[in-house]
Amino acid sequence: MPKISEEQRERRREEILAAARRCFATHGYEGATVVRLERETGLSRGAIFNYFPSKDELFLALAERDADRLSRLWADEGLEAVIRAFVGEDPAWLGAYLEVGRRLRTDAAFHERWKRRAPEAEDRIKERLESALAAGEIRDDIALESVGRFVGVVLDGLALRLAAGFPSPDAAELIALVESAIGGPARTRTPRRTSA
Amino acid sequence: MPKISEEQRERRREEILAAARRCFATHGYEGATVVRLERETGLSRGAIFNYFPSKDELFLALAERDADRLSRLWADEGLEAVIRAFVGEDPAWLGAYLEVGRRLRTDAAFHERWKRRAPEAEDRIKERLESALAAGEIRDDIALESVGRFVGVVLDGLALRLAAGFPSPDAAELIALVESAIGGPARTRTPRRTSA
Repeated sequence: MPKISEEQRERRREEILAAARRCFATHGYEGATVVRLERETGLSRGAIFNYFPSKDELFLALAERDADRLSRLWADEGLEAVIRAFVGEDPAWLGAYLEVGRRLRTDAAFHERWKRRAPEAEDRIKERLESALAAGEIRDDIALESVGRFVGVVLDGLALRLAAGFPSPDAAELIALVESAIGGPARTRTPRRTSA
Repeated sequence: MPKISEEQRERRREEILAAARRCFATHGYEGATVVRLERETGLSRGAIFNYFPSKDELFLALAERDADRLSRLWADEGLEAVIRAFVGEDPAWLGAYLEVGRRLRTDAAFHERWKRRAPEAEDRIKERLESALAAGEIRDDIALESVGRFVGVVLDGLALRLAAGFPSPDAAELIALVESAIGGPARTRTPRRTSA
């Protein structure tokens, strides 16, 4: 195999990821066979697996990117931007995501690997929530972890609905509802009178 | 084929449904082949399809029952009971549900059939929401349809999380969060002073 530069390698890796994303979106997780991945990337399986050791790892790399991108969006622009990004996501790609749900439940090794897919993303979200809590923007009567989990539930449900081709809820209304759910004293409650 | 009474027919239908539910839960939607359905029900495909014209219709009958049961629960005991029922649902069965998500998006006929699966259940929920709105228990600044859709999104997300084997959010906390999201003036806002 001819030697290629680090830059070329990086570019090739990006090309494989982009092609694989299209392939998973078009054919679903199960349907994205190695033959189809070869066709879509224009590379042999040997060349693909030189970058990603398995189809699972290829998919996980894409999932990692999404988690990373969304957590940055959350940290930089807030939950509203994340919800808008979800609503604008390719339903076909979300569909491929949902297919791994069953796999997650039935394959313990995959489940463990999935949980470790983007620890920095999780830390980033946790930090963002903590600072929102400190600023009184998030309710303090429910554990922060539960608040984060609730937002995750809403985003998962949104993905499911979009992937199934049902009309998306209006983003602005959805944002208002989520904010009422998790909003803190500074936002939703009547300010207490000072003793003065 | 020997004639059987209406009552026997009804009992047989119930047995097929119960066995099919186990089969879908164990093997997933795709994995629940006709051979496996035969084995689990102890009946030939001819006998099964005498009751349900296809595997799709068998699955839809189960989905209809769930929609019916949950809408009754919602109407009779409120949203809290529905959320608790979801948290207690068999994750394996929820997993089979999720598998049809992709089908819903890619198969227009199935999508249409799915939308018509339980119209009475939808009407029941709509009625319940309308009376809650009239009682001031639901916010009136967002369209009722959007409120209903939001609850659907939360329940879908919950199903996804449970089906994937992730820890369920605490039911009581989830209920509190959803109630804050959709709760109306009578519940969450400071009552207005009367002119007296």
